[in-house]
Amino acid sequence: MNAHAPKDINIVPFVSVDNMMKLVNSIGIETFLGELAQFIEEDFKRWEIFDKTPRIASHSAEGVIELMPTSDGEVYGFKYVNGHPKNTRAGLQTVTGFGMLSRVDNGYPVLFSEMTILTALRTAATSAVVAKYLAPQDADCMAIIGNGAQSEFQAMAFKSLLNINKLRLYDIDAAATDKCIRNLSGKGFEIERCDSAEKAVEGAQIITTVTADKQYATILTDNMVGSGIHINAVGGDCPGKTELHKDILLRADIFVEYPPQTRVEGEIQQLPDNYPVTELWQVMTGAAHGRRNSRQTTIFDSVGFATEDFSALRYVRSRLDGTTYFEKLDMLADPDDPRDLFGMLLRAQIDVHKTL
Amino acid sequence: MNAHAPKDINIVPFVSVDNMMKLVNSIGIETFLGELAQFIEEDFKRWEIFDKTPRIASHSAEGVIELMPTSDGEVYGFKYVNGHPKNTRAGLQTVTGFGMLSRVDNGYPVLFSEMTILTALRTAATSAVVAKYLAPQDADCMAIIGNGAQSEFQAMAFKSLLNINKLRLYDIDAAATDKCIRNLSGKGFEIERCDSAEKAVEGAQIITTVTADKQYATILTDNMVGSGIHINAVGGDCPGKTELHKDILLRADIFVEYPPQTRVEGEIQQLPDNYPVTELWQVMTGAAHGRRNSRQTTIFDSVGFATEDFSALRYVRSRLDGTTYFEKLDMLADPDDPRDLFGMLLRAQIDVHKTL
Repeated sequence: MNAHAPKDINIVPFVSVDNMMKLVNSIGIETFLGELAQFIEEDFKRWEIFDKTPRIASHSAEGVIELMPTSDGEVYGFKYVNGHPKNTRAGLQTVTGFGMLSRVDNGYPVLFSEMTILTALRTAATSAVVAKYLAPQDADCMAIIGNGAQSEFQAMAFKSLLNINKLRLYDIDAAATDKCIRNLSGKGFEIERCDSAEKAVEGAQIITTVTADKQYATILTDNMVGSGIHINAVGGDCPGKTELHKDILLRADIFVEYPPQTRVEGEIQQLPDNYPVTELWQVMTGAAHGRRNSRQTTIFDSVGFATEDFSALRYVRSRLDGTTYFEKLDMLADPDDPRDLFGMLLRAQIDVHKTL
Repeated sequence: MNAHAPKDINIVPFVSVDNMMKLVNSIGIETFLGELAQFIEEDFKRWEIFDKTPRIASHSAEGVIELMPTSDGEVYGFKYVNGHPKNTRAGLQTVTGFGMLSRVDNGYPVLFSEMTILTALRTAATSAVVAKYLAPQDADCMAIIGNGAQSEFQAMAFKSLLNINKLRLYDIDAAATDKCIRNLSGKGFEIERCDSAEKAVEGAQIITTVTADKQYATILTDNMVGSGIHINAVGGDCPGKTELHKDILLRADIFVEYPPQTRVEGEIQQLPDNYPVTELWQVMTGAAHGRRNSRQTTIFDSVGFATEDFSALRYVRSRLDGTTYFEKLDMLADPDDPRDLFGMLLRAQIDVHKTL
């Protein structure tokens, strides 16, 4: 350490997968989702101060690797995330990620974290925050079509924020539904296993679609969706990947995170570029309407935006103090004299020789 | 670990500042620079296969934070780097950085590394690689104007690749020159300390300018530079920061890394957007001329490009095998069943309770 620099500024807290799981479990999954949702909502409400840019994608035949940066003027954050649909065949995650926060005033990182688990949590928390504004007021039952890695997180977030305690589950793969039921047992849900998407949506006020195939799929057709329903469309999140029939989009009110990104990646890639959509930050600040009446069909065309990852990292950082759920990484060179990087390297050599 | 995934694919090697210094010192700084230079040259020679994009910058009043991604189709890499000129006043580095490599075919990270020291090494190695093509053949003497953090790295790289053993040093701050002389003593240089930039360039065949102020400066004026000289202009590397008088640019042949970036950030920001420059990859592949004769004045308008960081990370990765100079980071969630991320989280909770 040099004399002038703040103590330990060269050391960056790192939250590993193991520590993230310990942090989440020590707080409790439901509480974690509820608190995380507050941070997400707070950041949506100060949307205009964020430095926003569509994600920077590097595409290949097998998938995509993306960087998602943003800044609120005081803190800068970015997430690295990949999407490789064929990974599951090799026993790998389709989506993995990590992220960091740093100080805008000096550029020094202040947090580095796994984001595979954290992304699953923030995606679910975002869906639930949005549903507070869009779902019918008396909703207690949600259909989940697609019972893969994200499904239980969605269920827990909707329980935490909206007291949804009835689930209707369907997946083309019965084993996925088995897994989802097993994981959610004892969590306070009344669960109905359904053998078709049509059955799953019966009586549900909220429909969550969260399937994984990278192709134009039609999980929901128009005649399956009654009026007054809120659709939480999570699975369609890249070019060429959609879940809803175009006719549903045309008779619903569509809500999005960041139109320049959603028009490329979301369900609305099926619609003309100027098709009217409502930005969620405007709903949350009161500048635009959310649900107006009980007959309206609403759609959250979720694709995931950089500010949500920023909120998630900000929340994790706020919860690390006083815990042991992080390691300290020696990430930043910190010579006694900032201009003497070479001298630091030379002195390290002498130190090595001394210890031999 | 799940049964199908490659062993330890969830564990990412991390090279800390301490381990980077140990790695460099165990190889030897000169050897490290020479081998690193080979990786940089190799990647310039296969320039056309790289996915290139100008860096993604987030500007603030105090500085800039940038992400520099690239890919060769098999490996993806990016660097995080900040530039905060006022940081030195607080005892902090102006520039810090870290970077990573990952596999394009599955998106999984394979290396995470500090890049403050590594960037200093790659910047110097790049300058020396370029000088192999542009400096006069008989060059043995280099002026270094600006004796800050990058200066010794430049000296060592030019010694390693071009056998430059005479240095002429000048800095407006005599303490910086003191430090540079101290650090380079016993490294096989004949060093002349000069009290002006004019004195420093006398008799030098190569002039390296590597000053740090973020402003339009004129370190070299036209009458200071004789014919046949190679100028290695390292310090001017962002909008509003230049080191050479425009008249020198107009009578020299200018060589650049990636024109779309250099026209914004380099010395040539002083020239019209269509001013002819030569791309270095073309010189290295033989598609364009480097130095043609002994009267030609050449300029490397160095700004630093993502492929050089990629080369540096690729080199470090190749040198880690069989060493202990890395830690293992548990960065990637790896459930037994890729769709069972939530179950992994639940089971971690049970594990915690078991150990209580």
